[in-house]
Amino acid sequence: MVDENRKNERHQARMQRIKEKVDARINQAQEERGIVIVITGNGKGKSTSGFGTVARAVGHGLSASVIQFIKGTWACGERNLLEQNGCQFHVMATGFTWETQNREADIAAAQKVWQEAKRLLADPKTDLILLDELTYMVNYDYIDLDEVIDAIINRPINQHVVITGRGAHRTLLEIADTVSEVQSVKHAFEAGIKAQKGVDW
Amino acid sequence: MVDENRKNERHQARMQRIKEKVDARINQAQEERGIVIVITGNGKGKSTSGFGTVARAVGHGLSASVIQFIKGTWACGERNLLEQNGCQFHVMATGFTWETQNREADIAAAQKVWQEAKRLLADPKTDLILLDELTYMVNYDYIDLDEVIDAIINRPINQHVVITGRGAHRTLLEIADTVSEVQSVKHAFEAGIKAQKGVDW
Repeated sequence: MVDENRKNERHQARMQRIKEKVDARINQAQEERGIVIVITGNGKGKSTSGFGTVARAVGHGLSASVIQFIKGTWACGERNLLEQNGCQFHVMATGFTWETQNREADIAAAQKVWQEAKRLLADPKTDLILLDELTYMVNYDYIDLDEVIDAIINRPINQHVVITGRGAHRTLLEIADTVSEVQSVKHAFEAGIKAQKGVDW
Repeated sequence: MVDENRKNERHQARMQRIKEKVDARINQAQEERGIVIVITGNGKGKSTSGFGTVARAVGHGLSASVIQFIKGTWACGERNLLEQNGCQFHVMATGFTWETQNREADIAAAQKVWQEAKRLLADPKTDLILLDELTYMVNYDYIDLDEVIDAIINRPINQHVVITGRGAHRTLLEIADTVSEVQSVKHAFEAGIKAQKGVDW
């Protein structure tokens, strides 16, 4: 019992120290403006994290749009849900680039959705834009990096942008406010488990 | 023009090689069953990735539930959206543990939602469960690790479980099928930007 009491006291002291630190940081962080979030790395969960952020924004009644580059042509659960709840989707819809194997057609398809992205990145009524798998488009030279950077840094002050995909170009990391790298520790696929509805698509 | 043609040919050959590799892996991966996904690490995007997976499942008409441990007491956008679309939430709702500073009350609150989690982990009608920030509960000894492991490994065969939070216990990593570690490269908060509606909560 004495031990339990001591444990509880130590817990309270430790939590009080954490609270002071957290409160101090919250007081310092006073700026509100649109931010750029980049979620990169080779692990599972980059696009799902982007879609989680879109769900969060839509749930608050914000106006959100999704631009999907290199997307498989199958139906996606998140699209069903988010479109029903007012989120706009613009999807490249050519399928993976190793399925099409046609560079010129891929470039044309990428450019077509990129024009939609540019329009939204100039629209102050759009609160949040997810540029899903944009990194590949830049790395493959399907979309010009400078054009992407210009559109992002000149966007409306309160607009948030989320960019996902492996190997984000270092200039994208530089202009980002928040960067997370998702690393794969292991993946069910490697153990012979199929991609499954509801978790993988 | 010759250069462009060569580029396009090289692209096609490269993509053909990738397609063969991807197709071979898809053919090998034939098993379908519920999987355990752990999203850990210190970076932003773990919970949002969990909620993205829930949005995906809900969008496919699957039955999904969310158990939230150590949750701030503010309203969350994703909860609004997902609850409206049939997802059940069970929230510890005591706020962060450094706010309550009361270990016994925290344990009681954690145990209460853990009972809901156990019930769902035994329910074959539940297709997917998000155990948001469960890792802390195990690390703080608020919930017994063995009890968590037992509930997860004895769950219905087709049920998916997603676990988020920093410092996932190695036994959780061992029983997981997919593990991603989200590392923080930088965070807007460190640059003095406030937590904002629609991206942070």
